[in-house]
Amino acid sequence: MTRGIVLFAHGARDLRWAEPFEAVAARVRAAAPDCRVALAFLELMAPTFGEAAAALVAAGATRIDVVPLFLGTGGHLRQDLPPLVEALRAAHPGVDIRLHAAIGEHAAVVEAMAAAAVAAAGLGE
Amino acid sequence: MTRGIVLFAHGARDLRWAEPFEAVAARVRAAAPDCRVALAFLELMAPTFGEAAAALVAAGATRIDVVPLFLGTGGHLRQDLPPLVEALRAAHPGVDIRLHAAIGEHAAVVEAMAAAAVAAAGLGE
Repeated sequence: MTRGIVLFAHGARDLRWAEPFEAVAARVRAAAPDCRVALAFLELMAPTFGEAAAALVAAGATRIDVVPLFLGTGGHLRQDLPPLVEALRAAHPGVDIRLHAAIGEHAAVVEAMAAAAVAAAGLGE
Repeated sequence: MTRGIVLFAHGARDLRWAEPFEAVAARVRAAAPDCRVALAFLELMAPTFGEAAAALVAAGATRIDVVPLFLGTGGHLRQDLPPLVEALRAAHPGVDIRLHAAIGEHAAVVEAMAAAAVAAAGLGE
């Protein structure tokens, strides 16, 4: 089974917006070298979700995990992303597509953000 | 010196959006019990940055650290937040106000997001 992962972020006009997402993608690639890792954006940046996922399918991916690089679950993840995932499933019924929770809802990410805030402000012991 | 910290997030119509931010605030409070911790939002949720910061000043804070709970630095942090910080400085010239980088740009947070993505997708060793 060829695995693929789409890291789905918001996008912005400012190119520097993408830097943390590119850093996450690089680390995921390093941790899972046999998995094809694609970064995709909801708006303002390329590639789109559909473009990134189509490239993974074209490369032979038979399972694609979609991980939203969003801090919380608002309208973008509740309303914008599900139709994109459904369209991908409809176009590629043989591909196992799994949608995961917002990255910011993982306990370890919450913990890391809190620790980074404490350190940035020079608080704590 | 009484310390305060404003954790500044985007806000959304969906109340559940705030959950990870509230979790971060709770952990910062636990790590820095002598610091007053406020969560504030750019839009759609209360309190605003100005309201949260004013409450910290009213409570006696003489230094306020502002930590943006954003994954990257786009227009909101480059254009929307600096005037809010400047207005706060102008209103309270005796308060030491320090603006920090987006939480998503901290290496430990990038690392945690990558690890969470790998775990969510069932990748890695």
